[in-house]
Amino acid sequence: MIGKDLVSFRDLEKKDVEHYFKMASQMEKNLKSGKKLVKNKVVATLFFEASTRTKLSFQTAAERLGCNVIDFGVAGSSLEKGESLADTIKILDGYADVLVMRHPLEGSVRLAGEMSKHPVINGGDGGNQHPTQTLLDLYTILKEKKKIKGVNVHLVGDLKHARTMRSLLYGLGMFGADVTLVAPRGLEMDPGVIKEVHERFGLKVRELSALDVRGADVLYVCRIQKERFLDPYEAQKVVAEFRITEDALVGAKDDLIIMHPLPKIDEIPASMDESPHARYFEQARNGVPVRMAVIYEALKYKK
Amino acid sequence: MIGKDLVSFRDLEKKDVEHYFKMASQMEKNLKSGKKLVKNKVVATLFFEASTRTKLSFQTAAERLGCNVIDFGVAGSSLEKGESLADTIKILDGYADVLVMRHPLEGSVRLAGEMSKHPVINGGDGGNQHPTQTLLDLYTILKEKKKIKGVNVHLVGDLKHARTMRSLLYGLGMFGADVTLVAPRGLEMDPGVIKEVHERFGLKVRELSALDVRGADVLYVCRIQKERFLDPYEAQKVVAEFRITEDALVGAKDDLIIMHPLPKIDEIPASMDESPHARYFEQARNGVPVRMAVIYEALKYKK
Amino acid sequence: MIGKDLVSFRDLEKKDVEHYFKMASQMEKNLKSGKKLVKNKVVATLFFEASTRTKLSFQTAAERLGCNVIDFGVAGSSLEKGESLADTIKILDGYADVLVMRHPLEGSVRLAGEMSKHPVINGGDGGNQHPTQTLLDLYTILKEKKKIKGVNVHLVGDLKHARTMRSLLYGLGMFGADVTLVAPRGLEMDPGVIKEVHERFGLKVRELSALDVRGADVLYVCRIQKERFLDPYEAQKVVAEFRITEDALVGAKDDLIIMHPLPKIDEIPASMDESPHARYFEQARNGVPVRMAVIYEALKYKK
Repeated sequence: MIGKDLVSFRDLEKKDVEHYFKMASQMEKNLKSGKKLVKNKVVATLFFEASTRTKLSFQTAAERLGCNVIDFGVAGSSLEKGESLADTIKILDGYADVLVMRHPLEGSVRLAGEMSKHPVINGGDGGNQHPTQTLLDLYTILKEKKKIKGVNVHLVGDLKHARTMRSLLYGLGMFGADVTLVAPRGLEMDPGVIKEVHERFGLKVRELSALDVRGADVLYVCRIQKERFLDPYEAQKVVAEFRITEDALVGAKDDLIIMHPLPKIDEIPASMDESPHARYFEQARNGVPVRMAVIYEALKYKK
Repeated sequence: MIGKDLVSFRDLEKKDVEHYFKMASQMEKNLKSGKKLVKNKVVATLFFEASTRTKLSFQTAAERLGCNVIDFGVAGSSLEKGESLADTIKILDGYADVLVMRHPLEGSVRLAGEMSKHPVINGGDGGNQHPTQTLLDLYTILKEKKKIKGVNVHLVGDLKHARTMRSLLYGLGMFGADVTLVAPRGLEMDPGVIKEVHERFGLKVRELSALDVRGADVLYVCRIQKERFLDPYEAQKVVAEFRITEDALVGAKDDLIIMHPLPKIDEIPASMDESPHARYFEQARNGVPVRMAVIYEALKYKK
Repeated sequence: MIGKDLVSFRDLEKKDVEHYFKMASQMEKNLKSGKKLVKNKVVATLFFEASTRTKLSFQTAAERLGCNVIDFGVAGSSLEKGESLADTIKILDGYADVLVMRHPLEGSVRLAGEMSKHPVINGGDGGNQHPTQTLLDLYTILKEKKKIKGVNVHLVGDLKHARTMRSLLYGLGMFGADVTLVAPRGLEMDPGVIKEVHERFGLKVRELSALDVRGADVLYVCRIQKERFLDPYEAQKVVAEFRITEDALVGAKDDLIIMHPLPKIDEIPASMDESPHARYFEQARNGVPVRMAVIYEALKYKK
């Protein structure tokens, strides 16, 4: 069952995730009707790390549900006066009905949940856990492909450092997608994660060290930072080889979709935005109904 | 017809402007009844240049209509991570129903409109285009004088650099006001603009190099920056001559009104605020119903 | 009677304060029902001094009433362009129905009230006046102890510099509490204030220079800054003696409650948060219904 807090995607069972999908789909219908589902509830956003897009997505979701939003801006706040994070959480817990928190320190959101009476939703936790991102990624695949099971998903980029890719792999395993991991040599995903997802869900991944889009239904792209390479020439070469250009898509299925968590820099050239394959802006937009579902469920929780 | 975006006052025909006036007047009546006209719509404000007053005016207008607001704060945003403006617009376009944007680069708001599916309203574009300012200026004259045609309007100050004065002149020409341009020598309005407005609307302006309020119905004042003069003594002298003091108003009509886009510094002394002639704070307040009208019309646009 | 502005607790008569208490209690009931009492009103927050907690408390109160909020962020505002505070107030007065203002300069909020047509509520004025803090402090005592008259309240800490303690003493005098002032030598409350409250309400205070919790119903604690002492050893010793540890509570009444205006640093150890005596987070939460009452009354004011 869905608990008080949403800290990690791994806290969720498959039926919880399916419930969120169903709710998110319902939310999209509600958005068209303009009906507000919630009355007189306050959602507090506490972003101790800049992430404008995620924060605005949560705020939009809260407002479209009918909630009010208060935002704890970090600059100039009482934290500067030496107040502990615990006290800040407990005070905000006294004002709001749901807290959405992003914090650079791993584990801090879990701790916040333990200290608050109201539900805490993780808006990103040290780059480690970002459960609503995984939910909206999976929801986008489901919405675009009408299923996740058996869909051929390529995860592309620096899979070693892009830690949210681990949650996505876990989610894809949960729903039985066919997964190909495409990473430059040295930037492969941690074998421990692959092993864990295999043991848990029986997922067997295919691993490639170069782009090969043939057969792919979904290309999920993340950035490769040049700083990861010792040799600048090597860096430039690899980044170029992993860039999602029109040329790189030769041989792709007609209905291949390209996803990206955004912000993107140059791993996908701007010209690709007009491609019928591009779905990353739709993916970002799907964050709103997914987060509406998450907030709506959290508001059901009784202290 | 009123289009998808409102980028420049020059995109509007006279009947569009008249429609906004009628709507704004209706909005003022609605404000008194407290009725909210809009349900479950989100307006995003993206101010890439500080302008608290304009932003709050738009936010107030959106909220009084019944919309929710999300604000894309520039500091700490993804733009710092290297995201393109285009991507930011496309993501916000996925969250909100209308975008209100201010940006230091001329043309950027027009471009944003082309990239977004939802309407984009210009909240000030490189000091060049600021269409809702022109609308609220004209609306204030209409409200105070019951007409614009034949009203004797003096535009006073540094007409060379105050670029929003150009839009106002265009608007006054459109509605057939009598216009006098009052600027210090060297800071006169661009003759090309005067010529254009004459050719388009037949407006003949009178030009003065010193204040002469006799016969004026409206004194529309803007600042003269001392930095525009090479000689500090000359600067001080001219600024003093153009200051709107009680003495400067000797011989003025009883119902002369003084307008100013605000913020004002010392071109109008604070003592003038109590004068029966002062209308600049009412003018600022008129921004709310005018922007309500603009947002309301934008929300009618169907993708 | 409750006036247009709420600048100082001393502007209020006992029956005004009792009215706010009654309203705040009603607001708590309304919060449970989820009913919004106000439609289409805008509350502006102008915090010229950082105070996240107070600002969020006011914003939450406004939103839970059904108001919309606009926030005048100080950084990047027109004040930087040289606009006078008076002009800023007058413009905001044209947008909003109630202004909530915090400002480092004593007297500035009173002045703002004189310049605005709409009510101005003081959110903290140079550390001097903070009337809603005093209201919520008294409301918390009333709620916890069912009365204020005869309740044994210890005000503990640096009573010389904690100027809001003066308003609280005044309020406790007004309601006939038994007051003990507990301050380190040299940091005692100004005798002039004690004299004034005695003359006005007949309050006789007991003064102690060390903690002695026996008989106390309420321990109201504020911080002692080490910078107040010349001798660092002395500072450390005094701060330790005034720390509210479990040991310091030996001999306390079972139903003693500990209050604190927050933020707290180390004058109350975090372990105390779990104590049945601790009430400071409830106290912070009570700020919401109290400020709802204050905003609600302000909105009744007719220009």
